[in-house]
Amino acid sequence: MMKVYLDNNATTMVDPEVKAAMDPYVCEIYGNPNSLHDFGTATHPALRKAMDQMYEALGARDEDDIVVTSCATESNNWVLKSVWLDLIQNGEKDHIITTEVEHPSVTAVCRWLESRGVRVTYLPVNADGIVEAHTVRDFITDKTALVSVMWANNETGAVFPIEQIAEVCKEKGVLLHTDGVQAVGKIPVNVTKAGVDFMSFSAHKFHGPKGVGGLYIRGGRSLTSLLHGGEQMGGRRSGTLNVPGIVGMGKAMELANYYLRFEEQHVRRLRDKLEDAILQIPDTYSVGPRDNRTPNTVLVSVRGVEGEAMLWDLNRAGIAASTGSACASEDLEANPIMIAVGADNELAHTAVRLSLSRFTTEAEIDYTIDVFKKAVERLRAISSTYAYTPKKEGA
Amino acid sequence: MMKVYLDNNATTMVDPEVKAAMDPYVCEIYGNPNSLHDFGTATHPALRKAMDQMYEALGARDEDDIVVTSCATESNNWVLKSVWLDLIQNGEKDHIITTEVEHPSVTAVCRWLESRGVRVTYLPVNADGIVEAHTVRDFITDKTALVSVMWANNETGAVFPIEQIAEVCKEKGVLLHTDGVQAVGKIPVNVTKAGVDFMSFSAHKFHGPKGVGGLYIRGGRSLTSLLHGGEQMGGRRSGTLNVPGIVGMGKAMELANYYLRFEEQHVRRLRDKLEDAILQIPDTYSVGPRDNRTPNTVLVSVRGVEGEAMLWDLNRAGIAASTGSACASEDLEANPIMIAVGADNELAHTAVRLSLSRFTTEAEIDYTIDVFKKAVERLRAISSTYAYTPKKEGA
Repeated sequence: MMKVYLDNNATTMVDPEVKAAMDPYVCEIYGNPNSLHDFGTATHPALRKAMDQMYEALGARDEDDIVVTSCATESNNWVLKSVWLDLIQNGEKDHIITTEVEHPSVTAVCRWLESRGVRVTYLPVNADGIVEAHTVRDFITDKTALVSVMWANNETGAVFPIEQIAEVCKEKGVLLHTDGVQAVGKIPVNVTKAGVDFMSFSAHKFHGPKGVGGLYIRGGRSLTSLLHGGEQMGGRRSGTLNVPGIVGMGKAMELANYYLRFEEQHVRRLRDKLEDAILQIPDTYSVGPRDNRTPNTVLVSVRGVEGEAMLWDLNRAGIAASTGSACASEDLEANPIMIAVGADNELAHTAVRLSLSRFTTEAEIDYTIDVFKKAVERLRAISSTYAYTPKKEGA
Repeated sequence: MMKVYLDNNATTMVDPEVKAAMDPYVCEIYGNPNSLHDFGTATHPALRKAMDQMYEALGARDEDDIVVTSCATESNNWVLKSVWLDLIQNGEKDHIITTEVEHPSVTAVCRWLESRGVRVTYLPVNADGIVEAHTVRDFITDKTALVSVMWANNETGAVFPIEQIAEVCKEKGVLLHTDGVQAVGKIPVNVTKAGVDFMSFSAHKFHGPKGVGGLYIRGGRSLTSLLHGGEQMGGRRSGTLNVPGIVGMGKAMELANYYLRFEEQHVRRLRDKLEDAILQIPDTYSVGPRDNRTPNTVLVSVRGVEGEAMLWDLNRAGIAASTGSACASEDLEANPIMIAVGADNELAHTAVRLSLSRFTTEAEIDYTIDVFKKAVERLRAISSTYAYTPKKEGA
């Protein structure tokens, strides 16, 4: 049976080239970079190269900081909690603006901050699945400490107008954080051009290793450390440097940037082919305009077919998909983004996310189309909510 | 030239068996464990096995939590900051007790908490390099929220009387955290028997991978999350699970436990041989009684020889050692633990830490003894503070 991995927004396969770059730093060049002896300094050239790869890929300037963390969840927690500690606990500010469709590592922190007295505004997305800059502007007050808006959505792939939102934040003198997890490696990301103050990212979303991510911090921005301790990362984030992880993330980012055009052309074509085939089935929908989505992602709805039932059928055929964020996949509630874009409650339970990568092949997509069509037939036939009428031959 | 790594308290080589256990989870079994499809669930048996290995190795009970973090620095920050958030910010308590010789990831957090109004008592160590339980008792008040005392010291290897300190804390109703980083894998560690509430550890200190560590949390102990987000780790620590890292840490802990007797016998014998040879040189000292140290560690002082100069000579001969914690090695101040154990200021600048591992060979130790002796001769000959008189043959 063919195995097809279409859940690349949850995590990705480490590129074998990335693993090859990491391998020497596990059992051979294993010193602590902070040690003064040769075992320690032997790690330095690879670390410098990896940091250079990241600065280059993200368009960061020398005066900016790219701080390696353990994952975007840490980066997101860091920004939100430290802005709270730095600007809100002292009474200077009291308000954070975010969206209704952020990753749980933003939303859960916001809920926690609310429990400690912070006012949080959760902006809804429009029918295209995004928040417009003017909406952000409308909610900024002189007590707003931070705006936190994702660059691209994990479930729909919808790309948010980060540059315009940054202009609004700059104009109003409010810090802007963006969760760039689903943007890096899928669309061009230039933090300087975008004008954001903070951006989170995670290596395992772009064919790098798990357990390593980062936070871009614009030059001159202060932010209390989440992890105090040794002087690693210029004192911004303590903890023994994860040498293989950093080397792998640098290499993965370089490769992701190298393959951006391939992503934009080849991966997009395969995604569109899959999406077109699904939309040919009656009563199916996809969320958000294609030209404003990451090239690898489509969130489809099939009326009458529970998302979980579809996942099950796909999985039995060797195909991995998702009903939404893996970080929230253990609860079977209606997909909030479907509600946000105006789907009725029944349709909101039918969303299935298919997310490709540069390793996805045409044969895999053809196979998936075939399996998906058969699954819709089978599941609609046994659906309690869908009055299924088989199409006649030639109809 | 022989290469000899005697800085195993800074970091260790990943055991090739550990790397072999991790490798399949990088490019092959790469799913997100929180995904519902086969790519995700394929990771579950290895994760379960790794967690079992950790519970077994640490003597944790089913009702306890072992939460995987990115490193002990994260674990230490988590406990200290969350106890502050949970018990101090609301005015219930105002006080934390720790020692003068903790790792920077405890000390720096304590300094930061002090800047936010927390009272912190830094207990001095005695001439054996430890803090006695009765000293801890003397400083606990009804406003004390937490005692944080390391299990074994990173610089001297001195083993603290954690069981007795735990008894005191239990009697007084105060939470006890121990930084177990230098104990796990070197001496028997049983969290249940020890009676601690929280224990931090880091895989890269016992031949596991960098970028992964953990926090043991005794059953029933609440602790606000440091990383909010998805429901990973029972909701205690969010972030996509670092599958290879967890698998590697489990395997490394199993192996470390397996080799404990070897550590206690073979590694200790080599350490003692090295220590004896150094102590045969006039005006040399080692810190702390041998029978109360981790078997792999010795901190030696050579009067008239700056620690950094000795490191330099050793390094030129291919031998890696340290003047103290790698996390603080970039500043060249007097070693605080030397001051603490009563060394004069000049001697405090001479400390050199030699830390072995189960991979250290007898030939390496013989070579090190030879190089060390010659380095002492050379460096004392050019020392401005040491009046060197060469021993006559047969004297």
